[in-house]
Amino acid sequence: MTAGGAGRPDAPVEGYDAIIVGGGTIGLTSAWRMAGRGMRVVVVDPEPGRGASWVAAGMLAPVTEVHYTEERLVALTMASARRWGSFASELESDAGSAIGYRTCGTLVVDADEDDRAWSDELYRFQCSLGLEVERLNARKVRLLEPNIAPGVRSGLLAKGDHQVQTRRLVAALLAAATAQHVRWHRAPVTRIDVAGGTVQGVHCDDDFLRAPVVVLAAGCWSSQIAGLPAGVVPPVRPVKGQILRLAGEARRTLLQRSVRGLVHGSSVYLVPRADGTVVVGATVEERGFDTTVTAGAVYELLRDARSVVPGITELELVEARAGLRPGSPDNAPVVGATTVTGLILATGHHRNGILLSPLTAEAVAALAAGEEPPPEMAPFSPARFAHARPQPAVSETAARW
Amino acid sequence: MTAGGAGRPDAPVEGYDAIIVGGGTIGLTSAWRMAGRGMRVVVVDPEPGRGASWVAAGMLAPVTEVHYTEERLVALTMASARRWGSFASELESDAGSAIGYRTCGTLVVDADEDDRAWSDELYRFQCSLGLEVERLNARKVRLLEPNIAPGVRSGLLAKGDHQVQTRRLVAALLAAATAQHVRWHRAPVTRIDVAGGTVQGVHCDDDFLRAPVVVLAAGCWSSQIAGLPAGVVPPVRPVKGQILRLAGEARRTLLQRSVRGLVHGSSVYLVPRADGTVVVGATVEERGFDTTVTAGAVYELLRDARSVVPGITELELVEARAGLRPGSPDNAPVVGATTVTGLILATGHHRNGILLSPLTAEAVAALAAGEEPPPEMAPFSPARFAHARPQPAVSETAARW
Repeated sequence: MTAGGAGRPDAPVEGYDAIIVGGGTIGLTSAWRMAGRGMRVVVVDPEPGRGASWVAAGMLAPVTEVHYTEERLVALTMASARRWGSFASELESDAGSAIGYRTCGTLVVDADEDDRAWSDELYRFQCSLGLEVERLNARKVRLLEPNIAPGVRSGLLAKGDHQVQTRRLVAALLAAATAQHVRWHRAPVTRIDVAGGTVQGVHCDDDFLRAPVVVLAAGCWSSQIAGLPAGVVPPVRPVKGQILRLAGEARRTLLQRSVRGLVHGSSVYLVPRADGTVVVGATVEERGFDTTVTAGAVYELLRDARSVVPGITELELVEARAGLRPGSPDNAPVVGATTVTGLILATGHHRNGILLSPLTAEAVAALAAGEEPPPEMAPFSPARFAHARPQPAVSETAARW
Repeated sequence: MTAGGAGRPDAPVEGYDAIIVGGGTIGLTSAWRMAGRGMRVVVVDPEPGRGASWVAAGMLAPVTEVHYTEERLVALTMASARRWGSFASELESDAGSAIGYRTCGTLVVDADEDDRAWSDELYRFQCSLGLEVERLNARKVRLLEPNIAPGVRSGLLAKGDHQVQTRRLVAALLAAATAQHVRWHRAPVTRIDVAGGTVQGVHCDDDFLRAPVVVLAAGCWSSQIAGLPAGVVPPVRPVKGQILRLAGEARRTLLQRSVRGLVHGSSVYLVPRADGTVVVGATVEERGFDTTVTAGAVYELLRDARSVVPGITELELVEARAGLRPGSPDNAPVVGATTVTGLILATGHHRNGILLSPLTAEAVAALAAGEEPPPEMAPFSPARFAHARPQPAVSETAARW
């Protein structure tokens, strides 16, 4: 085994410094960042990058997503959004491939008077938080996006809300992590072993992988894995999202930037790619571990999307898919050390997983090295769900980096 | 080569008695029927059964389809519908597999007063033609189909309009024809050869297949094949149909029979299978050779289907597909001999291809044997598009059977 940077020559050949349970965007970004610090990392996942990350539209929208959240989460999402530019450059350079990061901004439009009232309220809240957002009248909306429906009366422009192509992001993370000597164990984790309050490693099928640090980044499956004492992982539930991919032509793109619409109280977004594709999403459904694409959801997504941008009816429907976001008890991320020494959680990112991956990975890599995570992450520690204070995330052995 | 029944011992070993250009339901049914008469038949198609037949819902609906047509076509569709019971039994027996022929009847419902007026007109027209159809009030509609939308006020029941599972039908035709020694040449036809006013055979890639009879059953591609004198094949155009397959559970079927709805002037049908699947169709679009599945069509099909049967929103969307029906200048079938000796046309079936396959195959097999086709087919000869009378379909040589 080759370890990039400061390896641990005294460790057994088969040993790892850290095991990452779950190869979604959070797990992959953490692996890449930890390997970049010289840690020997293995990611355990039967199919890395094929969970919620594969389905996600890739909106990086701290401003326009704000209404559903609260102030501490805004500080977190804004902090991660600020990292995205340099994160994207560094990743593309390491991976040798583009990830489709577009600093295109996001336009929010409303379909009727009720929707406008909601949107006014959102605008006031955004302003109160000091977010950069501009109120637009109908004429300005149409100057920016001529294909918006005639009925749209007003809009909000968030210049700082961007997008990334999630499937390219995942491919780049796999390449960059592999280049940093991250190892892949393509199997499901069946159990995490704990002895004397300290994590020992993970079982996957017939194998046991040992390491002083285990990062649990298994998305909506994070509280389903056996072996951990009760209460260590807060309940994380799947929040179903259905999404459509519509194919168009690169020379006739319908939209220049992401558009979010509120249509008679129902929320829809349209994320345009440079190749003419438009991603339309997404439902938010509490249905357990169900990834069925339903006729009803496809109908509602198309209904709302066409009421905002009628021209989408001419596009080809190439994919309809459902993914499962991880939802914590307060719908905010759960990132931090636990009462089990060496066990770090990085889950519960709900609708913000892609946006929060740079900051989450930075926090995870810091915790694994015995350092403090970025201050914006402090409120999102697993400790908020427990009565007892958590132990440090890393043991004396694991804290060498 | 083995010929079932009365073969032609004087023909060369590589010779065929007939070549069928196109392995859709019309071509396959004709091949099976001709082989059943002892003819040595080859079907030329790169992918038999994968054209419009693969997409079709399989409604056998001479009564509820009547409004779009006219009286001579009703006589034709009714004549073919009467053959379907014995045709299905014989085919299932030859193929050794079931084709999902269900004598379930079809219910037509209307969404509003305008739709009801249209439906009243349809009912009067159906009665004037002596068709068996029953007017139902809202209570009777719901007794038959409890999952019909509450807003539906009335309906029509056509007990004689049935359905078949088209993909099983195609599979059974392939098996039955193979059992009858039909040969398969999996390549596209590039040219039909004619010399001295008589068909010689067909070119496909580097091969030339020779036979005294050629049946042109190439669906919407029927007038695209080179080699025939101008005017022999009337222009046949593609009429695009988009269709959805929704998966449900066999123990909770939403519908007992096919349901057609008129929703604010727009027509939709829902064809339930025994396994809980519901097929929803179909658009009728003039778009040339385009099989793109569009967001707009999927939206409209789901919108209209759910307004008739709201419960479909809970079903899984498993497939959206477009097929191309063959449309002749008068939208009626083109079946019969041509001015080229030995060339028989069997195309232009538009929305009625599956329904008309038994009668069409009977007509083609009769013509190939130098016999008269069933009288109901006479008005649908290619001669109706020409000034000159057509020659007999078969030459002296070909007319031995």
